[in-house]
Amino acid sequence: MSLNTFGHLFRVTTWGESHGPALGATVDGCPPGVPVDEAFLQQWLDKRRPGQNKNTTQRDEPDAVKILSGVFDGQTTGTSIQLMIENTDQRSRDYGEIAQTFRPGHADITYHQKYGIRDYRGGGRSSARETAARVAAGGIARAALRELVPGLQIKGYMTRMGEMTIDRANIDWAAIETNDFWLPDSQAAPEWEAYLQKLRKDKNSVGAEVEVVARGVPVGLGAPVYGKLDTDLAAAMMSINAVKGVEIGEGMEAARLTGTENADEIFMGENGPEYSSNHAGGILGGISTGQDVVVRFAVKPTSSILTPRRSIKMDGTPTEVVTKGRHDPCVGIRAVPVGEAMMACVLLDHLMLHRAQVGEGPRGKIG
Amino acid sequence: MSLNTFGHLFRVTTWGESHGPALGATVDGCPPGVPVDEAFLQQWLDKRRPGQNKNTTQRDEPDAVKILSGVFDGQTTGTSIQLMIENTDQRSRDYGEIAQTFRPGHADITYHQKYGIRDYRGGGRSSARETAARVAAGGIARAALRELVPGLQIKGYMTRMGEMTIDRANIDWAAIETNDFWLPDSQAAPEWEAYLQKLRKDKNSVGAEVEVVARGVPVGLGAPVYGKLDTDLAAAMMSINAVKGVEIGEGMEAARLTGTENADEIFMGENGPEYSSNHAGGILGGISTGQDVVVRFAVKPTSSILTPRRSIKMDGTPTEVVTKGRHDPCVGIRAVPVGEAMMACVLLDHLMLHRAQVGEGPRGKIG
Amino acid sequence: MSLNTFGHLFRVTTWGESHGPALGATVDGCPPGVPVDEAFLQQWLDKRRPGQNKNTTQRDEPDAVKILSGVFDGQTTGTSIQLMIENTDQRSRDYGEIAQTFRPGHADITYHQKYGIRDYRGGGRSSARETAARVAAGGIARAALRELVPGLQIKGYMTRMGEMTIDRANIDWAAIETNDFWLPDSQAAPEWEAYLQKLRKDKNSVGAEVEVVARGVPVGLGAPVYGKLDTDLAAAMMSINAVKGVEIGEGMEAARLTGTENADEIFMGENGPEYSSNHAGGILGGISTGQDVVVRFAVKPTSSILTPRRSIKMDGTPTEVVTKGRHDPCVGIRAVPVGEAMMACVLLDHLMLHRAQVGEGPRGKIG
Amino acid sequence: MSLNTFGHLFRVTTWGESHGPALGATVDGCPPGVPVDEAFLQQWLDKRRPGQNKNTTQRDEPDAVKILSGVFDGQTTGTSIQLMIENTDQRSRDYGEIAQTFRPGHADITYHQKYGIRDYRGGGRSSARETAARVAAGGIARAALRELVPGLQIKGYMTRMGEMTIDRANIDWAAIETNDFWLPDSQAAPEWEAYLQKLRKDKNSVGAEVEVVARGVPVGLGAPVYGKLDTDLAAAMMSINAVKGVEIGEGMEAARLTGTENADEIFMGENGPEYSSNHAGGILGGISTGQDVVVRFAVKPTSSILTPRRSIKMDGTPTEVVTKGRHDPCVGIRAVPVGEAMMACVLLDHLMLHRAQVGEGPRGKIG
Repeated sequence: MSLNTFGHLFRVTTWGESHGPALGATVDGCPPGVPVDEAFLQQWLDKRRPGQNKNTTQRDEPDAVKILSGVFDGQTTGTSIQLMIENTDQRSRDYGEIAQTFRPGHADITYHQKYGIRDYRGGGRSSARETAARVAAGGIARAALRELVPGLQIKGYMTRMGEMTIDRANIDWAAIETNDFWLPDSQAAPEWEAYLQKLRKDKNSVGAEVEVVARGVPVGLGAPVYGKLDTDLAAAMMSINAVKGVEIGEGMEAARLTGTENADEIFMGENGPEYSSNHAGGILGGISTGQDVVVRFAVKPTSSILTPRRSIKMDGTPTEVVTKGRHDPCVGIRAVPVGEAMMACVLLDHLMLHRAQVGEGPRGKIG
Repeated sequence: MSLNTFGHLFRVTTWGESHGPALGATVDGCPPGVPVDEAFLQQWLDKRRPGQNKNTTQRDEPDAVKILSGVFDGQTTGTSIQLMIENTDQRSRDYGEIAQTFRPGHADITYHQKYGIRDYRGGGRSSARETAARVAAGGIARAALRELVPGLQIKGYMTRMGEMTIDRANIDWAAIETNDFWLPDSQAAPEWEAYLQKLRKDKNSVGAEVEVVARGVPVGLGAPVYGKLDTDLAAAMMSINAVKGVEIGEGMEAARLTGTENADEIFMGENGPEYSSNHAGGILGGISTGQDVVVRFAVKPTSSILTPRRSIKMDGTPTEVVTKGRHDPCVGIRAVPVGEAMMACVLLDHLMLHRAQVGEGPRGKIG
Repeated sequence: MSLNTFGHLFRVTTWGESHGPALGATVDGCPPGVPVDEAFLQQWLDKRRPGQNKNTTQRDEPDAVKILSGVFDGQTTGTSIQLMIENTDQRSRDYGEIAQTFRPGHADITYHQKYGIRDYRGGGRSSARETAARVAAGGIARAALRELVPGLQIKGYMTRMGEMTIDRANIDWAAIETNDFWLPDSQAAPEWEAYLQKLRKDKNSVGAEVEVVARGVPVGLGAPVYGKLDTDLAAAMMSINAVKGVEIGEGMEAARLTGTENADEIFMGENGPEYSSNHAGGILGGISTGQDVVVRFAVKPTSSILTPRRSIKMDGTPTEVVTKGRHDPCVGIRAVPVGEAMMACVLLDHLMLHRAQVGEGPRGKIG
Repeated sequence: MSLNTFGHLFRVTTWGESHGPALGATVDGCPPGVPVDEAFLQQWLDKRRPGQNKNTTQRDEPDAVKILSGVFDGQTTGTSIQLMIENTDQRSRDYGEIAQTFRPGHADITYHQKYGIRDYRGGGRSSARETAARVAAGGIARAALRELVPGLQIKGYMTRMGEMTIDRANIDWAAIETNDFWLPDSQAAPEWEAYLQKLRKDKNSVGAEVEVVARGVPVGLGAPVYGKLDTDLAAAMMSINAVKGVEIGEGMEAARLTGTENADEIFMGENGPEYSSNHAGGILGGISTGQDVVVRFAVKPTSSILTPRRSIKMDGTPTEVVTKGRHDPCVGIRAVPVGEAMMACVLLDHLMLHRAQVGEGPRGKIG
């Protein structure tokens, strides 16, 4: 990964600012012959699209993705794929104040200090709009995975939002699409909504925890020592705006457990090894076991709130900042499809790395 | 990062197995003219060295590091540096059983499935002995940072071990070197030791949480979007054996906070911007703010325990595994110097990336 | 370099097919604060633009470049720059025949064999139109070099076209812009033109040799052993369509010389070391000496000619191919600005690599 | 490629100085299960070894390679392989003069200027001894290719040494091993030897041209646009010490040819497409055609000669340099096995890249 690119072989370079003419992703290294079109990509962008309901920003963008290269006759050609999303709702306005002021918790101040110049319109490059490009690229990865690993499923959902949590006993993937919070427990949604609307009225925002699970991942993806599957997942998720922590399987809880509690015992099943539990999150020694790959990440509360916060201007004078724009009270909601997209990209990348080094499929037999 | 290499410009490739003749690190891209010798590197290896006290493995290795290239007349030359550590205590033994059995929680089974071959002696490449090479490479990074960023300090310490935690009010860096647990609160050490010895007697092991802080980091390290400082720190820490979670600043706790609670307000200090708090962990938009860079990671409990666990053999038949070797009851203890080494490598790498793109120092002035 | 990206730190990823909606370059890692606009880039694209005179293809494209991201208020921001050129003259036609036939000397057959699918319209991704994106990216590199190395000049010109050569005694950079062949000897142009028009009437094409010189390159760019300046220049030039050979300084002639003939003796000048000659082409041990950096490359004759050539169809049946399209009789002419662009990209990349590792300027003094 | 590493997936990092304790190669990404041992590697090192006959340097080194990691039970494990060659004949001597003087045509001056420090003993890192590490790594690549592409042959030989050339009509691969010049025409050897001994007596040296051919390369290796097979071959060969030019197929001669002369016409053979000729050198559009892959490179004459050359000292004062050491009168001879090693590494790397993206074997059928 370097600056605006991630991935080893399935390489995604994103570009574009929040209020520039367009943003997009240059996707390099995709396998050839993968059926894909704009409609297939659009379904994932629609999941992330703002303005869908009252729990997200009211900015209304169609976020229509165009494929400019690398797809011919409905299939990928193996050459670089350009995905472009035009910005259509970047309202013209006077940026005078925001151009001179650093919003607390934002990248305004560090971009300015590092580069000496920043596109202050809507956060420029640091805006979460960049994640639309990830979702588009993730759609390409999903299309390739659909061909290469039929049966693979990737599901993201929220597991916490401030004081709200889910009851893991109720997890039902079928529920995820039925509510505005991507909750796997649709019973919980009304309470979450009430909680969030109260925070919004209080001119506040809140953090969130998102879990992304990949089911049907082949055994053997990931490589020692710095090419571990969990290493790349950690980097992928931590690169998402506002993410402050990443966990695999037990995650930070592993620090509390004993060896007897944490052990995933191994048994011989009909189709190969099976495990008594999945504390490991589907990864041992950086390599997938064939169990569910389980990643969680925490998204900090939106910094842009209506409650005044103290800050400074470029000339060093003190000021108070109230961010009036159209902001998500919980950016974690729209981080769900972004997390799924990153999972798809990392899995495809490691599938390609694996077959580069080892060939098709795992090598060692058991039983 | 790819397979056995990490870093963009300060690139470390490690090699070697637990019971092979030697292991080491090939360090490429180091700035020239950096004073360094074997003694300087050895001090960090001695921190990680096994057999130092009863809380770590009794394997006794001098872990003496040799510099084979890239240093001339006591200074780095800018060419590739080879660091080698010979293995001296790989006791010859009959590996018959371990060669055929998969230890639960170990990489034995995934290495076998992925590659069809594995060096089963002491875990081979998946052994935590690999981290000795990281510590050696981290010593080179520290030597370079000493020249380039005088005053930079990197400190790692344990913050949790099973039920044991530290009192953050007592944190005192001076205490860290005075106890076997790298605790910043030396009062706590006896209780931790009693707890660990009880677990050991119970044929058990336990997880741990390690915090690594870098103080004096220049403003402006890290780059959007996939070259974020926190992205690379997450990858670096997650690549350490047995790590299951990584946090920056508030980490997973960020999911519980509201926007008003989480805001780090900004003030103008004598030497530039100052912040009311450091929920962000010293990083905004992937770029360092000049505050302490704070990373935490969780290490799972050692899988190798004397309590029998159910598993299978290569032929698929069931078996019970009791790992008799010389294993750490809490591998998290020795992960402390490893985490410090990774922090040093990532910071130097980003310092180099920054001056490649932007030149010496940050660009934008405030006030 | 990997698939569609080149460069270590100044990274250019190109995308787009000859007859798709657009093509372009994603430029990542550019220093911030560099003044640049579309007009600055357009001047280089106009040099490469087809349809300018009767010696190049009659395809008439404005090749207007748009900057979609990474430039704000007339300066680069340090984030990824998207450059897009819309295709406007991809005449709609029946591709039935070309879709089934492999043109000798073209990538048609290898793309098909490798990928199982190819965009056959105008050569798709293998078309020399891809080089427009390089020229645009090279414009960004030139803009950055103008800031970082004032006085640096990059000049490309033809030195051979079939039987035509230049008289090196007449080389005058001022002449280059005055003729259609980018000849540094404008006296020679009429004879070259007559030669080329005769070949065109004979339904033939011809190869060419292009020399690119960089004057004012700082001492110290390039790094041992696989990051040599000449290594990256060789890769950059060889990656241009139809290039079959690359030379530095004496190039292939070095095989004929003796040690006494080849020696560039060293003297102390007023501003540092000077050399009696430049057989080395400005590079010793992979590192620039401060002399002119001299690269030459050979471009094969256009494969698309009106003289019938024997070939096969996708079903294996024999056929004869006559390429009727609008093709350059000597693609080497338009390769001149492309070679210049690659030189600019490589030099900027190495300037950034140098200051990453060593800091600003060379380190060792002489005298 | 970056500094001391080359390759995308089969990655070789070399380390070590001419007169340091050892040198070697860290080989990462090798496929698992490849049978290889030290004896297999040693045969290639013996080809490159100095002191074999009067045409090469009299420095006598066994150049015995040790495998320190990554091979277990006689097979590669898929983890990083460390290859080490100890330096045994670095005669202790007084380096006083050479430490202060820059030899013309050497990297002495540029290393000093770039880094401010250089290991002047025997040329340090810039010595051709580095190529021993390449040959060792190339042995690993050959071992893997032997498994993955049975029947692939790689042959290097000299085609020019000053005024001496070969008669291409006489090329016979069986002759290559029978003479000291790796000539494919053993009749020519005595004349070449007389020519070289005369030059040596005249206190002079001479350049050379080496051709490396790979026969049996699968169709489809290489990828557009910056991952072309010829791009990587050009970089690989240009990175060898003293190389000043690289050609694919017709090479620089392509500039003299017309389109009708240069066309490789296509026919349908029993096992797929066949070509009337191989001007292309086995590569079209950066992708292998299945024909012989043909690369040539020119090596400049050894700079270290007994004839005095004018130069300067570190303090800027003029001096005359006579290099008395044990130097090859024609370094091109020992470049032959080095060129072969680079070819092996590039081919394996591209085989892995191909199967990462496309899977096993080419995709598109003909006929």
